[in-house]
Amino acid sequence: MAVTPTSVSLPAHDLDSDPAFALHRGGKLEVRSTIPVRNADDLALAYTPGVARVCTAIAEQPGLVNDYTWVSNVVAVVTDGTAVLGLGDIGPSAAMPVMEGKALLFKQFAGVDSVPICLDCTDVDALVETIVRLAPSFGGINLEDISAPRCFEVEDRLRELLDIPVFHDDQHGTAIVVLAALQNAAKLTGRPLSELRAVIAGAGASGVAVTRILLNAGIGDIAVSDSKGLIYEGREGLNSFKADLARDTNRARLTGSTEDALVGADVFVGLSGSTVSEEAIASMAPGAIVFALSNPTPEIHPEVARKHARVVATGRSDFPNQINNVLAFPGVFRGALDVRATTITENMKVAAATALAGVVGDGLSEDYVIPSPFDERVAPAVTAAVAAQARLDGVARL
Amino acid sequence: MAVTPTSVSLPAHDLDSDPAFALHRGGKLEVRSTIPVRNADDLALAYTPGVARVCTAIAEQPGLVNDYTWVSNVVAVVTDGTAVLGLGDIGPSAAMPVMEGKALLFKQFAGVDSVPICLDCTDVDALVETIVRLAPSFGGINLEDISAPRCFEVEDRLRELLDIPVFHDDQHGTAIVVLAALQNAAKLTGRPLSELRAVIAGAGASGVAVTRILLNAGIGDIAVSDSKGLIYEGREGLNSFKADLARDTNRARLTGSTEDALVGADVFVGLSGSTVSEEAIASMAPGAIVFALSNPTPEIHPEVARKHARVVATGRSDFPNQINNVLAFPGVFRGALDVRATTITENMKVAAATALAGVVGDGLSEDYVIPSPFDERVAPAVTAAVAAQARLDGVARL
Repeated sequence: MAVTPTSVSLPAHDLDSDPAFALHRGGKLEVRSTIPVRNADDLALAYTPGVARVCTAIAEQPGLVNDYTWVSNVVAVVTDGTAVLGLGDIGPSAAMPVMEGKALLFKQFAGVDSVPICLDCTDVDALVETIVRLAPSFGGINLEDISAPRCFEVEDRLRELLDIPVFHDDQHGTAIVVLAALQNAAKLTGRPLSELRAVIAGAGASGVAVTRILLNAGIGDIAVSDSKGLIYEGREGLNSFKADLARDTNRARLTGSTEDALVGADVFVGLSGSTVSEEAIASMAPGAIVFALSNPTPEIHPEVARKHARVVATGRSDFPNQINNVLAFPGVFRGALDVRATTITENMKVAAATALAGVVGDGLSEDYVIPSPFDERVAPAVTAAVAAQARLDGVARL
Repeated sequence: MAVTPTSVSLPAHDLDSDPAFALHRGGKLEVRSTIPVRNADDLALAYTPGVARVCTAIAEQPGLVNDYTWVSNVVAVVTDGTAVLGLGDIGPSAAMPVMEGKALLFKQFAGVDSVPICLDCTDVDALVETIVRLAPSFGGINLEDISAPRCFEVEDRLRELLDIPVFHDDQHGTAIVVLAALQNAAKLTGRPLSELRAVIAGAGASGVAVTRILLNAGIGDIAVSDSKGLIYEGREGLNSFKADLARDTNRARLTGSTEDALVGADVFVGLSGSTVSEEAIASMAPGAIVFALSNPTPEIHPEVARKHARVVATGRSDFPNQINNVLAFPGVFRGALDVRATTITENMKVAAATALAGVVGDGLSEDYVIPSPFDERVAPAVTAAVAAQARLDGVARL
């Protein structure tokens, strides 16, 4: 086995002066025992020979694995490293700090144990096959930072094959929080969702999922754009996911750019990493709602957007109305695990959004359409709504 | 997705009266954060946007994954559930309590984080392929309870393909502890290993590995038996692993049963789950060494064996000289991870055994040839020996 040096140092100023590196030294997670093993008696129960009786019981009644192991409380946070944050395809190892971060948020916000799994494969078949093989170890699968359009097929196939929740957070976490914020923004501006026309810039994982959840929630119309402009039925070269999108959106069959569609529109959701001009925002309908969610640089500076729009949200913590997935995924999985849901239905996602919007309550204002990630009411509210909806949808096992 | 009830109760007396079930309720592990996330500033370092700088650094210099994630301290405990304890092929879910137990022992005895991975596949190609895909997430792979002969090929291929330690504990953990105990037993009875003739009952994972490590350590001769009797060169129907074993053992080309070979033998190691008669033990050479390691029922009751043998060891905690893998695997991985070893060499295993034997020191007696699992000197001694040998063997990266 060849030995290659692996701990070359970066320029000293980065590693020494950036507090992110000091914080990440040695990683951010540990696995701990929840029971004591102080002596031979403890060992004889937690390990051989006592453990054999628990194994035997599970072999005879497979459902007992949920009662007598950690499986029913542990989620795999799985990536292939192909779409990490805004950094793109940086590979599985470089994705690990994000997956560890996700795992610590799962624990902190909802008491969900989770394990980062960074896979060294990107082929859809290989990803699906590998995750299916891993599944007996986990009570749920959180897919993360897998690039579109592969992420859609990976998730769809896993949902078919597995009887535990599978949830691609880049899609549905974002979608839930956007819907929650939009419900509150619509309420604030006195209009039902069904009267709003939205423009979504970006047809990647989050753009597609936001579009789907808004359609499910009854939005008036949506036009979606990708790097080639607006998506409409019959546009050349659409992949199957975008062709589906074209069929269900853009009833006016608008062509041209995102900015063309913004004229007179009520809602803009930026999920593209691109920019939008002040003029385009100014061309929107009165009482416009602008969610400029690209990170770290929003599609338009929120203070500029605010000159023309009634409600502005971003993905950043240093401006009002932060659209942050951590508002959704901990409670979504907590609720699903609590009732041992076999899947996460579309209704459960909408219920999560509605519960999240409800936390804002009477405080609703232009600068407060979505709660803070540190609002302790959020995860319990989302958890309860998701669990209740799972029961209504007949996918709960408890 | 069909919903099936999964929490049927076992007969109440089992679940209520057996303390193993109470202890295992909810599982034995949790994943925790090692850093605080109290507010938006903490979140901005541990998660976006701060985490992106750490990801970028790792993408540019892959070795930094060992410094700024938990990867270099976390071991996958991987099974397919085909050879769990003495229970056999009970499947991946029923294997989970054992894997959790392993993980808690890793943490308790050596501060190694580990994650139980129970795989829903048993084909050698599938196991190898899956574990290779998982490998970026881990600093080492502990294979566990995979049946022979597949376990040999799985381990061999993974050792070729990966540049992190791969260690099948059923093989090498057992082998290390047996060698340690035998070194001390030989010392006690005043004979070098090279003058001892051993008989090993069992040619599964542990039988093969014990044979190999004893040969590496210079034992005089070994005869190995399987369910069909003694293995000798030319015996019909040997698989390739047993054919290799036949070539390297049983120089006298003994045929017949285990008991036939025990006449005049110095050492018996039982790893078969079968039994051996008192007469056979009585037929061994003076000063005989008997390791009756099947669990929970040793091949011969240790008090009966002790009437005829100078040193008796078992796998049980309620008799002297417990041969327990926990004496080896925590320190072996701790040592390998500490120097970021690319592999675990044969020398490192022998070094672990010698260090383990050395902990006994001047206290050496018939009833004390191996330390207690709770002897706090064990893991540090094994760790130091393994790390030092890794450097000598040129497989250390630190």
